[in-house]
Amino acid sequence: MRTMNVAIIGGQFMGKAHSNAWKNAPHFFDLNIHPVMKVACDLQEEPLKKFAAKWGWQETETDWRKVIARDDIDIVDIATPPGVHRDIAVAAAKAGKHVFCEKPIALNTAEAQEMCDAAEAAGIVHYLNHEYRRCPAVALAKRLIDEGKIGRIFHWRGTYLQDWLCDPNFPLTWHLRKETAGSGAQAGINSHSVDLARFLVGEIKSVVAMQTTFVKERPLPGAVAGTFKAGSSGGGQTGPVTVEDAIAMIVEFENGAMGSFEASTFAPGRKNYNYFEIYGDRGSLLFDLERMNELEFFSKDDPEYAQGFKKIIVTEPCHAYVDHWWPPGHIIGFEHLFHHGVVDFLDAIDRKTSVTPNFLDGVKGMQVLEAGLAAAQTGVKVTL
Amino acid sequence: MRTMNVAIIGGQFMGKAHSNAWKNAPHFFDLNIHPVMKVACDLQEEPLKKFAAKWGWQETETDWRKVIARDDIDIVDIATPPGVHRDIAVAAAKAGKHVFCEKPIALNTAEAQEMCDAAEAAGIVHYLNHEYRRCPAVALAKRLIDEGKIGRIFHWRGTYLQDWLCDPNFPLTWHLRKETAGSGAQAGINSHSVDLARFLVGEIKSVVAMQTTFVKERPLPGAVAGTFKAGSSGGGQTGPVTVEDAIAMIVEFENGAMGSFEASTFAPGRKNYNYFEIYGDRGSLLFDLERMNELEFFSKDDPEYAQGFKKIIVTEPCHAYVDHWWPPGHIIGFEHLFHHGVVDFLDAIDRKTSVTPNFLDGVKGMQVLEAGLAAAQTGVKVTL
Amino acid sequence: MRTMNVAIIGGQFMGKAHSNAWKNAPHFFDLNIHPVMKVACDLQEEPLKKFAAKWGWQETETDWRKVIARDDIDIVDIATPPGVHRDIAVAAAKAGKHVFCEKPIALNTAEAQEMCDAAEAAGIVHYLNHEYRRCPAVALAKRLIDEGKIGRIFHWRGTYLQDWLCDPNFPLTWHLRKETAGSGAQAGINSHSVDLARFLVGEIKSVVAMQTTFVKERPLPGAVAGTFKAGSSGGGQTGPVTVEDAIAMIVEFENGAMGSFEASTFAPGRKNYNYFEIYGDRGSLLFDLERMNELEFFSKDDPEYAQGFKKIIVTEPCHAYVDHWWPPGHIIGFEHLFHHGVVDFLDAIDRKTSVTPNFLDGVKGMQVLEAGLAAAQTGVKVTL
Amino acid sequence: MRTMNVAIIGGQFMGKAHSNAWKNAPHFFDLNIHPVMKVACDLQEEPLKKFAAKWGWQETETDWRKVIARDDIDIVDIATPPGVHRDIAVAAAKAGKHVFCEKPIALNTAEAQEMCDAAEAAGIVHYLNHEYRRCPAVALAKRLIDEGKIGRIFHWRGTYLQDWLCDPNFPLTWHLRKETAGSGAQAGINSHSVDLARFLVGEIKSVVAMQTTFVKERPLPGAVAGTFKAGSSGGGQTGPVTVEDAIAMIVEFENGAMGSFEASTFAPGRKNYNYFEIYGDRGSLLFDLERMNELEFFSKDDPEYAQGFKKIIVTEPCHAYVDHWWPPGHIIGFEHLFHHGVVDFLDAIDRKTSVTPNFLDGVKGMQVLEAGLAAAQTGVKVTL
Repeated sequence: MRTMNVAIIGGQFMGKAHSNAWKNAPHFFDLNIHPVMKVACDLQEEPLKKFAAKWGWQETETDWRKVIARDDIDIVDIATPPGVHRDIAVAAAKAGKHVFCEKPIALNTAEAQEMCDAAEAAGIVHYLNHEYRRCPAVALAKRLIDEGKIGRIFHWRGTYLQDWLCDPNFPLTWHLRKETAGSGAQAGINSHSVDLARFLVGEIKSVVAMQTTFVKERPLPGAVAGTFKAGSSGGGQTGPVTVEDAIAMIVEFENGAMGSFEASTFAPGRKNYNYFEIYGDRGSLLFDLERMNELEFFSKDDPEYAQGFKKIIVTEPCHAYVDHWWPPGHIIGFEHLFHHGVVDFLDAIDRKTSVTPNFLDGVKGMQVLEAGLAAAQTGVKVTL
Repeated sequence: MRTMNVAIIGGQFMGKAHSNAWKNAPHFFDLNIHPVMKVACDLQEEPLKKFAAKWGWQETETDWRKVIARDDIDIVDIATPPGVHRDIAVAAAKAGKHVFCEKPIALNTAEAQEMCDAAEAAGIVHYLNHEYRRCPAVALAKRLIDEGKIGRIFHWRGTYLQDWLCDPNFPLTWHLRKETAGSGAQAGINSHSVDLARFLVGEIKSVVAMQTTFVKERPLPGAVAGTFKAGSSGGGQTGPVTVEDAIAMIVEFENGAMGSFEASTFAPGRKNYNYFEIYGDRGSLLFDLERMNELEFFSKDDPEYAQGFKKIIVTEPCHAYVDHWWPPGHIIGFEHLFHHGVVDFLDAIDRKTSVTPNFLDGVKGMQVLEAGLAAAQTGVKVTL
Repeated sequence: MRTMNVAIIGGQFMGKAHSNAWKNAPHFFDLNIHPVMKVACDLQEEPLKKFAAKWGWQETETDWRKVIARDDIDIVDIATPPGVHRDIAVAAAKAGKHVFCEKPIALNTAEAQEMCDAAEAAGIVHYLNHEYRRCPAVALAKRLIDEGKIGRIFHWRGTYLQDWLCDPNFPLTWHLRKETAGSGAQAGINSHSVDLARFLVGEIKSVVAMQTTFVKERPLPGAVAGTFKAGSSGGGQTGPVTVEDAIAMIVEFENGAMGSFEASTFAPGRKNYNYFEIYGDRGSLLFDLERMNELEFFSKDDPEYAQGFKKIIVTEPCHAYVDHWWPPGHIIGFEHLFHHGVVDFLDAIDRKTSVTPNFLDGVKGMQVLEAGLAAAQTGVKVTL
Repeated sequence: MRTMNVAIIGGQFMGKAHSNAWKNAPHFFDLNIHPVMKVACDLQEEPLKKFAAKWGWQETETDWRKVIARDDIDIVDIATPPGVHRDIAVAAAKAGKHVFCEKPIALNTAEAQEMCDAAEAAGIVHYLNHEYRRCPAVALAKRLIDEGKIGRIFHWRGTYLQDWLCDPNFPLTWHLRKETAGSGAQAGINSHSVDLARFLVGEIKSVVAMQTTFVKERPLPGAVAGTFKAGSSGGGQTGPVTVEDAIAMIVEFENGAMGSFEASTFAPGRKNYNYFEIYGDRGSLLFDLERMNELEFFSKDDPEYAQGFKKIIVTEPCHAYVDHWWPPGHIIGFEHLFHHGVVDFLDAIDRKTSVTPNFLDGVKGMQVLEAGLAAAQTGVKVTL
């Protein structure tokens, strides 16, 4: 079996999710390329060693440039906050490494474009981890659309709501500063909705928007500088939140569909509510990530007296990825979407092809996000 | 018992719903004023006579001006399309009749303002029938907000979706022409959402929007001119749709909350999906008119390990209006909201006070709707 | 138009629901026989007069025998508790009156059989008001079964849960004494489930069961003796509950299907949860009375990757009864099922035919209920 | 770190689920005992080798007796069909190995008792893998009950429905023969419901039941004899199904609660519908395994106007096991319940204590299952 050595940069939430995927994808899927978990990299040596031991990364390194300089690394997995994506990705591409990159792609379109250009120039496989495309229920939505079961699409309604920032005492982590996060709800969660909309409906032509910041000042995190981690509150000092807490956009798609987006971390009771509705002239689709093993499908092909939203439990062997998991009704969880990403990324390397979403999708998605932010700031429609 | 004579103008869908309310409210509620169903008015004599017989209107009349000229009429119920609301309402007010008026209030703000001024000048009781305020579940939402259970409101998300215009062969009825309807989804359904938002959250300060017309040409209705009714398709000739099929707005409320609205009759599977979500710093609310006996309520006052959206079946005697109906779990339907309107309208007359929503609400709501249309046309934020 | 004079016996909860149906059915449906609300009868003169005035019954009478003796009464509507059904129904039938009778039919099978025999001998139209057969969603379930969409039925799971008896201080009303109610949850609510099972699946062959009484002693009602009404608690004295609070049955149907029933008024949160599931080799059905405008339907005829429970909103013009009500998605309520009963009952009289469920259904249903009670008492399977 | 060597017997569906748990539990949880995946055992050498390689079992062995004879094995994981549980478990216990055993415990109570006696005599830690007790939502149900939030329990309603045997061409696998499975739906799925009922409500005192076999003859599997695996259809020959396809039981608990159970694999649309309802005098609980990250909770402690079933998303750090997984709303799947079993089993070994459910629970559960089968066969109530 062919093997490839993987280096991961970033050992927090996403480091854990990615490590789990590298570790387990080979157990559930038959891979032509077996990933070897070679080296883990983060800034702080102690937590890094613990992280590496926990997940079986063979070595550790605190300088990501040294990781990329190594000849024995084939794949670089970027699991850091977005502020350093561009530097790492460009360097990795130039070094000829394939790149598996966590979303959002970067701080802005210019950075994303640089990453995309470097990756294309190097001829590497690049993947941007908007993992929800690889939810079996979303894959089924795509299939139904591609088969014409939805027909001409009239409406996209994408909503991504969480509630973890409601508490005004939640500290001013990197997510809440423009220089480290690019933007707030827009980058953190709406980027997922925009990626799904582009995947399922098509490209976006114009946008109007509004945004707001409900909590304008927050306690500084007590964590030591120099970690990628979201720190806990400390000190007593506060600092300004420099990104939006919530944003809403209305868009026109190139195919004439109307779309709406709404993203907020100020929605009590919504934990990871990545929800969308699609309405077309043949049928409709509803998806809720909190019930990610289900897809609702309304079809005008059903007899008139028996039409309704059908709750499909997307756990049959005929559904994408599912035959590698468990019997019908035995649901999978959030983490398994990362496994699907690893599987398809390795398969693209093996077959010398590309995988989506990739850095080009990152660029296009970021253009929409930036257009939304600009529209919100000016109050004027922005055409892409 | 005191009685008052009612005249109804308009004998179609809303004529039926209003008649049913005048007929039945006295059976379920103890009223100080007993409404006498005196005269029904519509343009076409034959269907009008049948309508009047069906519902027990004592007399018929095809000229609404004659109805208003009668001394024995105390209450004028306007159940026509909005194109004639202004003329009827102003005349009725000037004649000293109390006015019960179907929504939308009129074709535009100017007309609405005229109605409001005339009504206020005459000192009559005026009611605008946005009946959903009187759904027990909506009344409970209001109660929870007023009690502080939701706290500072962050978000309003109002959606009103139906699917009856998806069919491109649906004829060009009065709803689809600007001169008879004022606007399309905005006037027809979004007006309800705006009324609910104003009722539950507060006044709106600014708006951005987009709108679209998916089906630009439709068959002319075969129905004879001169009826208020939506005719069936006929002829073979077509005409242009001059209103929007769908509209979406993002707004800022005066209290700082962010709001979104989306209204469309191109959403297959959505039959009468008047849905809203409200998120505040203490809790959240969800309402779906298709399940109008239920309200979902999330409270941060619950212990952390037992928080969740609670589906309240709003059929207890302690809920608004319910003790007049049936035992718990024995649900009421769409029509009963009209009864509640009649009850509260008569009560306001009896107590010589006012009732809401009224023509002033109509004016304010129409201002928001017009601002949304203007924002959609210009692509620029409109401040009210 | 042909008219018929109706007399109602019983002016409490069911008297209200029946009166409403007699009053309103003619407004919504085109009837060949117009019911005239002639006389209302109950034991207590004062509340009776108020009731009659409220609903427009022309006359009152406190002796039901005098009502039946009148030549001008065509239809007797029995809306009393079951203890007096037999006497009234037999007398009415002998007097040649058509009988519209509230469920449960009587205190036991012997009484039910007497009623059935008398009705058949007299050649009258007799109707037993298990109103849930006339819910449009239930009618759709029947249609789907009759069309073969469910195939060979494997399972019936009927559940009827409420919570109004949880409170041990709820008084010892007529529902809780064997001599006035026949049995408890079995007669009060399980009778509905058994009727639906017989309607949708078929006749029952054998039964095992268990029952229990959670609260064995309750306060005596303070209400004056001699009313049909459930009184409020009074006195301080208590008396023994002589019926079951809850009962569960497992049955075999004649067609080989297995069935289960569970009925209880000790299920907090369940208000009027008349719920059933049907599973067959082609598909499945789910119904919940608390969401009575919906039916869920699973079909194995759908493609394998798109199977799921479909939530049909049963408010389309093509659904039974619905074209007389409101547009799609504008739901109807509990009360409207009574209207449907009145409509079909009058139609049967007009067309000189019969209507179901009738007293024969009452006999067969009661046989199942009694078999269940016997099985519960003995612990031994009872074959019908 | 202390390590222990694990041997697994059985490499099919459950072999996969258990292997995954041994492999991953250490990544997510901090364990005092680190499990070493030493040897995998199944009857067929070739698939076994593939299985072992896939999951990282260091060695393979086709004779389970040799595995148990090894001194270097500390833990025996029995993942075979139940027909061989007794022999393996007794031998393993006598050899002083700790035993992690898949459900159902054995073919009957006598076997289960033997296992329990051997385990207790040997002083080993024994665990019976009814994994659903370790679903965070079920753990929350237990917590709410223990805290008195449900109060005196009136009702347990347990249902376990699947649909994989509806197809009459599904072959006669080991699940369908009494000698290999013990019983059908009773052993396969109702055993889970009974375990949950014992966990959450208490011990069962008496039972009535019915059972049925819808498809009495099935094609013989084409698979070679001598594998633990469910074979695919082959040959053309058929054989008799010797177990029940569906069973329903009604029970009385020792604490006076009434219970019902229904288990079937003939319920189209139900994939892994392990559903229960619990009603008590303070509140109620609902759980559906197909939405296993949620628990519904109704509380009479809420104010009367705001009572309702609350859908708790059981993914908060304060919920059992959850802090080892992902942020709120990022759901876990079926497989993770096995990880929880491994964690608690190893913890019991480490702390020299016991874990539940264990072989004693297996005995008690099996007594209920056998009582149910006996009641179904005789039609007479069985008292335990």
